[in-house]
Order: sequence, then C-alpha cells, then structure tokens
Amino acid sequence: MTQKVSLDKSMDLLVPLAKKEGIETPWDRYEKMQPQCGFGELGVCCRICWKGPCRIDPFGKGPDRGICGATADVIVARNLIRMQAAGAAAHSEHGRHVALAMEHLVKHGLDAYSIKDEAKLMAVANTLDVDTKGLSTQEIALNVALITLNDYMSQDNSTGCTWLTKTLPAKRVEKLKSLGVVPHNIDAAITNIMARTHVGCDSDHVNLLLGGIRGALADYTGMVLATELSDIMFGTPQPVVTKANLGVLKENAVNIALHGHNPLLSEVICDMALKLNDEAIAAGAPEGINVVGVCCTGNEVMLRRGIPLATNYLSQDLAILTGAIDSMVVDVQCIMPSIGSVGACFHTEIITTMPDNKITGTRHVEFDEEHALEKATEIVRLSIDAFKRRDPNRINIPKVKETAIVGFSKEAIVSALAAVNAEDPLKPLTDAIVSGAIKGVALFVGCNNVRVKQDHAYMTVIKELLANNVLVLATGCGAGAFAKNGMMTQEAAKEFCGESLLGILTAIGEAAGLEGPLPPVLHMGSCVDNSRAVQVASALANALDVDLSDLPVVASAPEMMSEKAVAIGSWAVALGFPTHVGIMPQITGAPGVVKVLTEDAKDIFGGYFIPETDPVAAAGKLFDAIMEKRKGLGI
Amino acid sequence: MTQKVSLDKSMDLLVPLAKKEGIETPWDRYEKMQPQCGFGELGVCCRICWKGPCRIDPFGKGPDRGICGATADVIVARNLIRMQAAGAAAHSEHGRHVALAMEHLVKHGLDAYSIKDEAKLMAVANTLDVDTKGLSTQEIALNVALITLNDYMSQDNSTGCTWLTKTLPAKRVEKLKSLGVVPHNIDAAITNIMARTHVGCDSDHVNLLLGGIRGALADYTGMVLATELSDIMFGTPQPVVTKANLGVLKENAVNIALHGHNPLLSEVICDMALKLNDEAIAAGAPEGINVVGVCCTGNEVMLRRGIPLATNYLSQDLAILTGAIDSMVVDVQCIMPSIGSVGACFHTEIITTMPDNKITGTRHVEFDEEHALEKATEIVRLSIDAFKRRDPNRINIPKVKETAIVGFSKEAIVSALAAVNAEDPLKPLTDAIVSGAIKGVALFVGCNNVRVKQDHAYMTVIKELLANNVLVLATGCGAGAFAKNGMMTQEAAKEFCGESLLGILTAIGEAAGLEGPLPPVLHMGSCVDNSRAVQVASALANALDVDLSDLPVVASAPEMMSEKAVAIGSWAVALGFPTHVGIMPQITGAPGVVKVLTEDAKDIFGGYFIPETDPVAAAGKLFDAIMEKRKGLGI
Repeated sequence: MTQKVSLDKSMDLLVPLAKKEGIETPWDRYEKMQPQCGFGELGVCCRICWKGPCRIDPFGKGPDRGICGATADVIVARNLIRMQAAGAAAHSEHGRHVALAMEHLVKHGLDAYSIKDEAKLMAVANTLDVDTKGLSTQEIALNVALITLNDYMSQDNSTGCTWLTKTLPAKRVEKLKSLGVVPHNIDAAITNIMARTHVGCDSDHVNLLLGGIRGALADYTGMVLATELSDIMFGTPQPVVTKANLGVLKENAVNIALHGHNPLLSEVICDMALKLNDEAIAAGAPEGINVVGVCCTGNEVMLRRGIPLATNYLSQDLAILTGAIDSMVVDVQCIMPSIGSVGACFHTEIITTMPDNKITGTRHVEFDEEHALEKATEIVRLSIDAFKRRDPNRINIPKVKETAIVGFSKEAIVSALAAVNAEDPLKPLTDAIVSGAIKGVALFVGCNNVRVKQDHAYMTVIKELLANNVLVLATGCGAGAFAKNGMMTQEAAKEFCGESLLGILTAIGEAAGLEGPLPPVLHMGSCVDNSRAVQVASALANALDVDLSDLPVVASAPEMMSEKAVAIGSWAVALGFPTHVGIMPQITGAPGVVKVLTEDAKDIFGGYFIPETDPVAAAGKLFDAIMEKRKGLGI
Repeated sequence: MTQKVSLDKSMDLLVPLAKKEGIETPWDRYEKMQPQCGFGELGVCCRICWKGPCRIDPFGKGPDRGICGATADVIVARNLIRMQAAGAAAHSEHGRHVALAMEHLVKHGLDAYSIKDEAKLMAVANTLDVDTKGLSTQEIALNVALITLNDYMSQDNSTGCTWLTKTLPAKRVEKLKSLGVVPHNIDAAITNIMARTHVGCDSDHVNLLLGGIRGALADYTGMVLATELSDIMFGTPQPVVTKANLGVLKENAVNIALHGHNPLLSEVICDMALKLNDEAIAAGAPEGINVVGVCCTGNEVMLRRGIPLATNYLSQDLAILTGAIDSMVVDVQCIMPSIGSVGACFHTEIITTMPDNKITGTRHVEFDEEHALEKATEIVRLSIDAFKRRDPNRINIPKVKETAIVGFSKEAIVSALAAVNAEDPLKPLTDAIVSGAIKGVALFVGCNNVRVKQDHAYMTVIKELLANNVLVLATGCGAGAFAKNGMMTQEAAKEFCGESLLGILTAIGEAAGLEGPLPPVLHMGSCVDNSRAVQVASALANALDVDLSDLPVVASAPEMMSEKAVAIGSWAVALGFPTHVGIMPQITGAPGVVKVLTEDAKDIFGGYFIPETDPVAAAGKLFDAIMEKRKGLGI
C-alpha cells in the first residue's frame, strides 16, 4: 500500500503502523469514498438553490440543463468561480489579519510584535508610493497599513487595488484593466462573485469566468500584501540551512508542531518556546523544546527561522502517529479535522487558536495579538504537560531527515545575484535566460491530493525540467514535497540539473559564499508567498522590457486540491503563465468552459491551463510552453 | 398536469400550450431531473476541494466523514453558510448599487434620478444619527450615502454595521452583540464565511452556524439599506390599487415586462415608457406601452407606481408563451436562463442590462446610471420594434386578472393607523395584539419552488392563519402569489379573516378612507423589502418595551428555493422569530445542525426553524408558536 500512496519514505513506517493501530488515514477515507460522484468530478452538479440539486447528463441522454435552464457551461463556471472566491477569501483574510495587526502595532503597541525589517518597510513604502519624507518608521508603517486596508475598503471601481497595480509590470496592469478584471476592493470582488452566481444571475460562462479572474486577481492582491507585510513584521527570508521530514522530531524533546498558515501565531510561539526551554528540560525533556512545522506555517517558520519542516498536507495525520508530537498547534487553512480524532488516540494536544477555525472536540486557546505572549505561554505549557503524558512505547519516529537550503525570497535571490554582478544584479539571470543557459523558469505550487501518490508528481515533473535546464521555484506543499524528498541540497543540484543550469547555480552559489551550487529548487515560502515568484518574474519582465506573458515562465500545480490553489492557478493564467494542473480540474463536463480556460485564455491573457495527469507528459508540455515563449521573444 | 404544477389559473392555459408548442417548462425540467441526488438533498455532499467530491452515507454503511475527516455536521454547516453568504452578497450588491448611485447623484448629478422623498431622507438621517442641522438636502443625502457605504468599508470589528445597530431594537442589538454575530462590514462578513469554509478551516458546526448567522445579519443590513435608500430616491410606497396576473398583458399595447430586482433600472424604464408612448401608438399599438412587472422588480414598481404584476418566479418562462410580451428586460437575480431559449421561440426581446448578469445568446444593453435615459430609450425602442414583429396568431393571454391593493410600507401602515389614533398611531395595533383581537403577525416571504405546486402552500397556510385572526404581511414572490390569487382585495378580507381581525382591518381601512377593510394580506414589497416588516416589528417591540423575540411574530417561507431566502430565514431566526420553511432544508443529513437550527436556536435567539412540508400542519405550528409567544408575554 505504501508504494501506492506516497513517495515520502516516512510513510513506509507510518502507513502500516496506522493500519496496525486501526487508525484511519486520508488514504483509507479516500478508498472508502470510492466511487466518487462522477457528476461532481465533471463539475456539472448544481446545488445553488433548493429547486435542485440538478445535474447534467454527460452522455446526452438525460437533462442537458438545470431546472432553471442553466447549461453545463453555466453550472461549471459558477462552481469554479465560487472556488476562486473562496481561495481569494482565505488568502485575503490572512492578509487582512496581518495588516490589522500592523496597524494595531504602530497605533497602540503590541508586546509580541515589532517592525523587524525596516529596510523592507522602506522598500514597500517606495513600491506603494507611500510618502516617507521626514516620517518616523512608525508613521511610515501606519501609512503602509492604511493603504493596505484601503484595498479592502475602496468603493471606487474606476481604480484598481494598490497592491495589484503597484506590484505588477505596467504592461500587464494595462492589459488586465482593458479586460475589466482588475479588482478595486478584495472583499467586493468576492461579494461580486457570490452575487453573480446566485440563482438567476449571470448565465454566460465567459462573463462568469472573467468575473472569476477578477476574484483570482483579488487573491493575488491579498497574497502579495500578506507576504510583504509579514516580511516587515517578521523579517524577509534569507538562505538558511535546515532539515525536513519526520526525522526532525526528537524523542528527548517536547515536540511542538506548528500547522496552518499565519506567522502572527507561529512566530510568537517560536519566541516563547525559546524562553520556556528550561521548563521543558525540567519536565524531563533533556533536549528542551523542539518546534517543527507542518504545511505552510511550516514553510513560514522554516524560511524565517530555519525551524525544521516535519511534513506537508497529506501526511499531517500520520505525523501524530509518531507518538512524539506533544502538541499540534493550528490556526487557519488546510488543517484536516481528522487530526482531532487521531490526536485523541495519543497524548497529543490538538490546539485550535483562531475564533473562526475550531475543530469539535479539541482544545481551543483563543489567540489574539494583544494577548499573544500570554496565549503562547499557555500553549507551550500545555505542550510540556502533554509531554509528561507521552507513552514511550508508542514512539515511532521515522529515521528520514533531509538537509534543506531554503529562504529564497526575491530579496535573497537578488542579493545572491548581486554577488555576481553588484551593479546590475538581475543581469546574470536575464543573460542566462537570453543565452539559453537557463531555458526558462517554472514555479511549483499547490497541495497534496490523495488522488495521486503523495509528492510523486512534483518529483517527476521537476526532474525532467531540471535536466532540461529550467530554473525551479517552489512554494507551499510543493516546496514541502521537495524539501522532504531531498531536492534542496547542493548534491541534488549536481545530480539533477542540466549542465548549463548547474553552471549558473554554481556560479551564483559560489559568488554568494556557499562553496557550491544553489539547490536545484529555490524554496520561496508558503502558498501565500507565491507573490514572491511574481516579483521575480516582474523584475525579469521589467529588465527585459516585456510583459509577464512574454517570459518563458510557467507554473505547475501537480497535486492541487484546495480552492486557494484554484485561485492561484487562475491568476497565474491571468498574469500570462502557461499553468499545468496535475489533477483533472472539475470542469470537464462543460466544453465551453474547457475551451475558454485551455485555449481562448492564451489569446486573452497569454496564459492558459494545461491539464495533464501524467507527470512525464506534463513536463514535456511545460517545456514546450517555455520553448514557445522563447520563440516569441526571438531567443 | 396543470393541477399538479400550479394553483395559478393562468397556467391552465399556458402549461398545455407549452406542451403543444414543444417548449420546455421548469416543471418539464424538474421531471426530467428526477431522481434528484439524495446526497445533495440531505446536504452531505462536499465539493469544497478537489480531493472530493465526498459524500456521507446516510445509512451508516459507507463513509461517515469526508476524505479530510469532515463530518456530516461540518459538511452540511459549510454548505449552508455558503448559501447564507451568497444570499447576503446578492442583497447587499443591490444595496451598494443604490448607495453608490445616490452618492453619485448628490456629488455629480444624474439626469434620471433625484431625491424624490425628502421626508424619508430626513427620517433616515434621524434614524442613523446623521447630522442634519443647517445642511441642504443634497448634503444630508451625501452623508447618508457615505455612512451607508461605511457598512461596506469598516475594518473595525468592535462596532456593528450602522444600518443594523440603528434599525433594530436596542435589546436585540445587545443580544446579538453578546453572541458575537453582529457584522461590522457586510463584505467582510461574506469573505469571512468563504474563508472559514475553505478546506481545513472551521470544523465545528456550531461555530460555523454562528458565522453563518453573522452573514445572514449582513444580509439584513444590505436589505434594509437598499430599501430605505430606494425609498429616498424613488418614493416610499403608499397604498395603491392595481391588478395582478397575466391578464394584465394587453393585446393592443407594446408589453414591456420588467423582471429582476433593482429599481435603478426599472424606474427609469417606467419613466421612459411614458415619454415614448406615442411612438408605440405610431407603431401600431393603439393602447401604447403597457409596462408590467415580473418577480421582485414587479413588486417594486407595483408598490411605487401601481404598475400591474404579470407573474412571479416559477411562471416567468410561461409569461413569454402568451406571445404578447415584446420585451423582457432583466437586471439581477431570479432570472431563469431559460427565458433566453423561450424568448427565441417568439418575437420577444430578452434584454439583459447589468455587466455581471448576462445570458448567453440574448441581447445585452449595458445600463449605467450616467446613461440611464439613453439606455432606457434604447430598450423601450427595441421593445416597440419587437412589437412590430409580433405574430398575432400566437397571442394567448389568459383572462386572469385580480385586483390588488398594495403598497404597505411601514410608513403607509403607520399612516393608516394614525387615522384611528393620530397621537399614538401604533396603539390600535398594540392594543389589538394585547387584547387578542389580533393573535399575532405572520410575515410571508420567499420564492416559488418546482418541488411544490406553485402558490399552493402560500394560499393554504395563509387561509388557516387569517381565520385564526393572524395579521399577514407579505413580500417577494409570496406577495406575488397572494396578489395573483386574489388575496389583496377587500372582498378577500371579508371572506377569509376571522371576526376580530376583520374588525380591526375594517376599522383601520374605514378610518383611512378605504370604505371597507384593508386587504387581508399587506403587500410590503420585494424580497429586499423584508426589512419593512422588521421595522414594523421593531416599532411594536419598542412600543411594548420588549425584545423582538418576545413578540407573537412568526415568519414563513412556504415555497423557498433561493440562497437569498436561506439568508432571510436565517436572520428571521436570529431576530427571534419562529420561522417556517415549507421546503425540506438540505441539512437533514446532519443531526447536529438540525438540532441547532430547530431546537437550540430557540434558547439562543428566541427564533428557530420550523421545517414542515404540509401546509396545513405548518399553519398549526405557526399558530402554536404565536400562542407560545403570547403566553410568554402573559397576554
């Protein structure tokens, strides 16, 4: 079974253990769910009003429209754009949370937080055209927070969101404006999608899909502001060497697993774990407190602090099976409710922290920025208490631990490149792209999905591309997959990169003092940090004086599942990137929608979806797309 | 078949005609859709991520949780609160549209609009605590528009939306605040729901349902501001006598059917139809232009202008079958996409007008407030042109037309009551309730639903309640059903009301100069006008110095189907009203959710859901709920 479900070697120990212990895994639930509803898989199930549910017969023998008359194209488009709205909502709530915290910090002060990265603050103020002359750091930070919040407030739909229009290349902004898809207010874009998909509203699939793109661009907006403000408050990631996979758990330490997405919680717990280390030792844990990360919170603290990454989305349940996690502390998004029942089979404290994200039957310690230190203390002490209840006979920590060089923010990349060319840091990269030493850039994003073997598609696609001299960036659970599976080491660069790519990575790495190449995959952060990749692409586009859609840049989500991933993929297309999805999107019951997203989008945006479930074929299509873009540029 | 599908006598002609012509009706599509998906009907189908679709086995033999571990309660709660979010989005987009138009009007002027009702403006300014001293009408209107828009903008979650906190009784506001369910920003409440229902977020059904209630109260907020600002711009409804049902179409006139929801469009078309009447006559229509209404736009123009109502939701397709509708002009919500294909079988122009609500294959004339006169002219002329293409051999206008006395805004009711007691207008009503001459008040709301015989449940429930001396208010397609079926006449009052209720209606009617009773059903407007009923209830609560939940007031949605209706029903519960739904809500696969909404809600809010598909039994339960509230008050 293990071979079937995951490439992650930790699972070789834990999946059979789950079976032995009679604990259900996501894969068990997936098997039990078979066969899944075919109407749902095709997207042709409508549950938008209570005349329904309706479903279109894909074989043309039953209903060809819903009771209200909605066609398959309308039904599928409505379902899809509601997913884009939900993705945008998730990311932008995260962003708003950070923006409000920053406003609160500078207005009233917050013990647990500070403006850690003043240089980043100045850079952001500059990008956003925020006045800085004669203003204090606090005043500038307040202005940045306020202009950010305005992207949730503006009622003037003649202007676009500041964070979108100021961070994308001017050519792309013009293009998007001409299509009417630039959001002026993140929340309003979400509300608009929910309203236009209400029964008896928008019944034109092209119009619906454009509305969805506006929502997806609101997702981009929420994402870029979340990332940038987090850097200001918690520091901009710089390269750091750490470890990944479940072998990072320590038998002799209190293991706290931080899981979710938002650094506002995890950063303070990391601080407090350091402070309370002695209490853990006193409680019988000679190695003190060992904080590890799961999912995107894992990525956040990994990049900023070098905290090791325990695992990614699909194996979060299984991490608890090690018997060594004393608490799993969660905030928002991608937290399987099943961790509640698995935690209950062990001594593990599952602690929810956000008022709008609880799990029935688990402990809730409500976190807020004003009481952050107090709440973090409570959480760390609950973890130490749990450690005392740990059953040593049930410890099963897989001996799988890979080195991972991570922390490649745009700033970190530029700084590494500056070691090669201090005057024009981007030049080594643009030169390499123009010369073909680097054929193009591929961004790997997204989740795990139980429909495919965990991490396998990521690893397969990437190896093909690296061998063909494509530079690889990664975020989210994709980055987690690469970290866990040893793709963030210098050795991996030597093993998998094509000759010319390796040459460039080595030149940059050595100039930056790494005594060898950069890793073959540059870990840029959590899923909300996809905006970092856009910043790199925008810098390249500006340097080459072309639009984003002209660049040989592609995106790939080989194992996507969440609505956030749907939103990310959609704005990637809108920004002009050919975008691979390795899970068959649930739209195939609607020929019109499929045509718009996979064909017409190419003419409209320059980007388009490439659905391909075979990872080797996907790599080929992504490489072809890169070569087509190169041809367009005449390079 | 007719007997089975509709109580509306017009359908006796049109349903068989559709069959003969081979034109599909909603009922045909409903039949073709059988059997509908049982998982969807129970609410236990989850399509929130692409690991799924997942579904819980209601028989306990298959999956008892989704692949992520979500239980039936979590799945159902997430699905339900997304419906509440969509309902809130629909209503509040309507409200924002009106607020922005009013802002534009007073800032820059708009040819087609004005502040028609200054008294209402002053009353609203007073309610909202907007400063009026020394300010011009335009300045006051601007301040009202801005404070309204702030309900879409505020980022301060320590205060509630102004329109909610200022229009509900203080006791209820305190109650809702103590439960943490008061929205501070309509859009943010919607975004919050979409975010917390994203995969891996809120997994506690009680917490989810409370979040949904916040969204539903955002729906109330969007609704009350839409209604009140519309009154300022277009006049507050006063009683008017008009006609209802398809017999209002005229063979010798250009018939323009206005369909949708927002008066910004329909009011200007009504104006322009008057102006261009001669062009219609010149085109061969001796009776000129006959504007009729469909659905809630129908209710809006019926109440403000006495424009006759052609039909309600479920028979909108069939209206076109009369062959006498030259154009059906639509804006937003509850517009069946099937009108496109039915219109194509006739000469009828189907004209969409809003950028976010198109129908593939129909004509689109994009309407905006700045070019309202020009666009309305274009639309009216397109209708006249279509009239010229009308096939006289295909005219089939049912000879069904009922008198309807409509227009019972809160102001109209108070004004009628003032004829009885000028000093304390509410006293006759509170006295009647306290004495038991009126046992209670029932508000009928919601849609038609193909799952039950059109209009039948409305008529059945109401007759039972009237006979038991319950005062009946109605809005939306419920009001449409009563108007079409003759329940808004003085004769109907005499036929159906219990003795003491009739006595009161007669006393008020005669004092108000109607020479007889008020009609047994008081038509308050469109579905967005449900806020008018809340205003009446709030006035009663304040007069009796009790909370809304203490009043013998109930709500009923016997034929609901839309997400707006889900949102309305939910805030009705949150405001403290026992609320009947005559369609089985798609939540029954989740025992925990059912318990919260039908039982626990009673302790939490005072209101609760009463699902009952048998209309006679429903009437009994509603009456029992009224009597229980009376007992609580000791009356």
